[in-house]
Amino acid sequence: MVQAIRLAINGASGRMGQALLTLVREDQRFELVRAIVRVGSVHDGVPVFGEQVDALRYSHDWNAMPPVDAMVDFSGPDGLAIALAHCTEHGIALVTGTTGIDAALEATLDQASKRIAILRAANFSLGVAVLTRLLREAATALPDWDLEIVESHHGRKEDAPSGTALALGHAAAAARGGSLEQAGVYTREGRPGIRRHGSIGFAVVRGGDVVGEHTALLFGQGERVELSHRATDRSIFARGALEAAAWLVKQGHGSYGIDDMLQSRRS
Amino acid sequence: MVQAIRLAINGASGRMGQALLTLVREDQRFELVRAIVRVGSVHDGVPVFGEQVDALRYSHDWNAMPPVDAMVDFSGPDGLAIALAHCTEHGIALVTGTTGIDAALEATLDQASKRIAILRAANFSLGVAVLTRLLREAATALPDWDLEIVESHHGRKEDAPSGTALALGHAAAAARGGSLEQAGVYTREGRPGIRRHGSIGFAVVRGGDVVGEHTALLFGQGERVELSHRATDRSIFARGALEAAAWLVKQGHGSYGIDDMLQSRRS
Amino acid sequence: MVQAIRLAINGASGRMGQALLTLVREDQRFELVRAIVRVGSVHDGVPVFGEQVDALRYSHDWNAMPPVDAMVDFSGPDGLAIALAHCTEHGIALVTGTTGIDAALEATLDQASKRIAILRAANFSLGVAVLTRLLREAATALPDWDLEIVESHHGRKEDAPSGTALALGHAAAAARGGSLEQAGVYTREGRPGIRRHGSIGFAVVRGGDVVGEHTALLFGQGERVELSHRATDRSIFARGALEAAAWLVKQGHGSYGIDDMLQSRRS
Amino acid sequence: MVQAIRLAINGASGRMGQALLTLVREDQRFELVRAIVRVGSVHDGVPVFGEQVDALRYSHDWNAMPPVDAMVDFSGPDGLAIALAHCTEHGIALVTGTTGIDAALEATLDQASKRIAILRAANFSLGVAVLTRLLREAATALPDWDLEIVESHHGRKEDAPSGTALALGHAAAAARGGSLEQAGVYTREGRPGIRRHGSIGFAVVRGGDVVGEHTALLFGQGERVELSHRATDRSIFARGALEAAAWLVKQGHGSYGIDDMLQSRRS
Repeated sequence: MVQAIRLAINGASGRMGQALLTLVREDQRFELVRAIVRVGSVHDGVPVFGEQVDALRYSHDWNAMPPVDAMVDFSGPDGLAIALAHCTEHGIALVTGTTGIDAALEATLDQASKRIAILRAANFSLGVAVLTRLLREAATALPDWDLEIVESHHGRKEDAPSGTALALGHAAAAARGGSLEQAGVYTREGRPGIRRHGSIGFAVVRGGDVVGEHTALLFGQGERVELSHRATDRSIFARGALEAAAWLVKQGHGSYGIDDMLQSRRS
Repeated sequence: MVQAIRLAINGASGRMGQALLTLVREDQRFELVRAIVRVGSVHDGVPVFGEQVDALRYSHDWNAMPPVDAMVDFSGPDGLAIALAHCTEHGIALVTGTTGIDAALEATLDQASKRIAILRAANFSLGVAVLTRLLREAATALPDWDLEIVESHHGRKEDAPSGTALALGHAAAAARGGSLEQAGVYTREGRPGIRRHGSIGFAVVRGGDVVGEHTALLFGQGERVELSHRATDRSIFARGALEAAAWLVKQGHGSYGIDDMLQSRRS
Repeated sequence: MVQAIRLAINGASGRMGQALLTLVREDQRFELVRAIVRVGSVHDGVPVFGEQVDALRYSHDWNAMPPVDAMVDFSGPDGLAIALAHCTEHGIALVTGTTGIDAALEATLDQASKRIAILRAANFSLGVAVLTRLLREAATALPDWDLEIVESHHGRKEDAPSGTALALGHAAAAARGGSLEQAGVYTREGRPGIRRHGSIGFAVVRGGDVVGEHTALLFGQGERVELSHRATDRSIFARGALEAAAWLVKQGHGSYGIDDMLQSRRS
Repeated sequence: MVQAIRLAINGASGRMGQALLTLVREDQRFELVRAIVRVGSVHDGVPVFGEQVDALRYSHDWNAMPPVDAMVDFSGPDGLAIALAHCTEHGIALVTGTTGIDAALEATLDQASKRIAILRAANFSLGVAVLTRLLREAATALPDWDLEIVESHHGRKEDAPSGTALALGHAAAAARGGSLEQAGVYTREGRPGIRRHGSIGFAVVRGGDVVGEHTALLFGQGERVELSHRATDRSIFARGALEAAAWLVKQGHGSYGIDDMLQSRRS
């Protein structure tokens, strides 16, 4: 029988942490051995899955840590720094979705990746990772086709286009040897004139409670290719982080992205 | 046997006129009896469907006009004014797609509609007319749902959003008792903030040789309705004008739109 | 200030009943005064929204019923029969999603509708109701266009096409003066030959956890109209039932459907 | 200045041949030096682009052939056999869309590919080739996601699913290490039961004058990826064959497919 992966979650009381706990509870591949919160968290000491004898409790304590195979971190830069030190010391694979990382922490991550396996991502949806890869490929294979990106999100979203739409645009522009700074077109109103060759246009839709949809369109003459991702449940981001953890424990030290996981599955 | 409708086309050498001639030639419902061009047109006197004995020829002459049941006009304001006088005098049903009509000609059209049947439209696609009607209905039936309009056209189109997208927006805003001037949102870039309640957002896609696609999206909580029209062939506009002519010859005097034709079919 | 609608839910412990309770709790238009369960239900006597002083409790008792403006029933034929008697006697508007109703109960419903307002529906999604109405209209306005219906659902669904897809087909066929028995085409495999004129084709997609999507496509020459509904959250069915209740309390006696509600909003 | 590619078209009077001639005429990359027809063709000796001094004429004569860099063949097995002999002898790159090739001709093609560059394809749409490649990649990267293929074509199409849809299914099944014979599900009607794990479902839409649309859907939990190709103009197949010719003249001897062209562009 396969041994369950011993998992710790850092930032366990946050939105992503909670989503991870819900999933891990029913995922046979994992045994949750630690749910880490900040010092002073209201969750500290509370049982994670309800009151039972020997129930696992949220904890802020890094010293009493049992053996762990993988850590998933959604805690923030400070929490990540602590987790990183712990993982490096004990040889634990680290998956992190923490953003807003400064140069010093970047350097520490770099150093750590010479000893442990680290996977970082801003978006853990497997589908978005696949879409990004496919778009890169399509943009290269059809270099002269007009490329446009349409994204739809709920009405409470405040920025536009979405970070994921911009990331898709960057990936496509780079695949064609250019940059989104040159290629991006974000507004078309009144009389913008004919489409600039090589540009990448963005179109934004807002409404209802749409979790997130992204479509890249490549237009040739008389034909087109459309590549879409639709998210209907926010839990996919937690799901993707767990997939990443299950994959990462089998990798050697190094710095990885979601794309490396997909690549390796492919071969 | 049903008698064919005797048809005259005014503005026969223009893009729409040519498309109409191509269709009429193979449409058993019509007998083309006149293809009218401007005085001085290079087409004047040339056979319409190739050189044959007694071939119908393009003509600028309104005096030698044979009996006509319906006239389809895509000539421009000056040509329409002449056609209108002729139709009124002879009791001919008039379909016109001419735009840019001034107040004086509007008044003449109004007067004429007390004696003959006149159908006017800016877009003769039956599908767009149906979409407009359905959108009006959906906007009314789901008054609180977020409404967005996405349109796609070829890369040579210079204006945005398309006239048809704006017409859809006007129809939807009016159906909800508002105006597009208040409701319309045409750009979202950077940090536009949350969606304004009751607004109608437009998103524009440009690429390839897309003839024209329009989608109205109505977003509720947990569900949405999408209404789309896709045109793949420019000939649909000529086709719609012929449908209008076939319908109009059966109507009494009055001023009609495509929508009246659809309404009457429905009942 | 507007008086809240006093609401009773019959079948309150079922899946739809629970969804209704969740929504009602946060809906200012309603005051929940009764959550009715069967005799012997494990819920009987349990507080509906958690233990508090004077907490509303699930109850099987029809005698101790406080004054009620509207009842929403998802209980089944037996529960509906009891609810119907109670509503008729006390002049309560009744919304029901119960199916599998026999001829005797149908007759009782008919009789009751002469004294109270009754709204029945198999699918309480507002969006599906609107889609049905729009499809009926489009099928009539474009009588010669080829009509197809595509539906997508999660992989655990056992029947195909979905009941809603079939209902859409029936509505479209009837709108064209035909019947789905004659028009419906459910399989195309190998060499089915050219499309039969006037037929309505169904295409079925199964996968993932799709809540439910239905698209009606009307194909002309060179253009098409696509009408879609996408559900992303099962709660929309409960939401629709509440909308129906809020509308129904303002109607006179009679037998209504979701469509009547939409109609009345439109005018 | 770049030298134009000297091109011969074999099967020049057929539907694909005519489409190729129309495109080549305006494509600066090519100089048409020969338009080959069968012995006895009504086109034989007729000028290709209208009567002019020294106009290029359709010809059945292989002996008086001027120097040629590439030949595009859509003639049929017999015509291909002759073209193959000629190309092999003179070192001409050969693009062919001829199907129905028997074992003997296959062997000859194999032999020939040791001396000249040969590119064969059943569908020369670049977009379909890209879609096939992307689907293969997605099916591998997301091995557990439910895969479905939807295709739409005009109402006169007699077979279902389309050959391209089946080819997509074969590619996806193979990419997952299986076969479409095991995975394919072509009908769902009545009560087919829950979706079989690992199956690939096909859904067929017929209507209007749709040139051809193919969508592969991959459904995960809470998200999905959709990959579509839409053709709106039949000329894309001729366009793809010319792209292939322009690429093939730069390759060494060997047997190629559209995919090799896309691959090579990518790197």
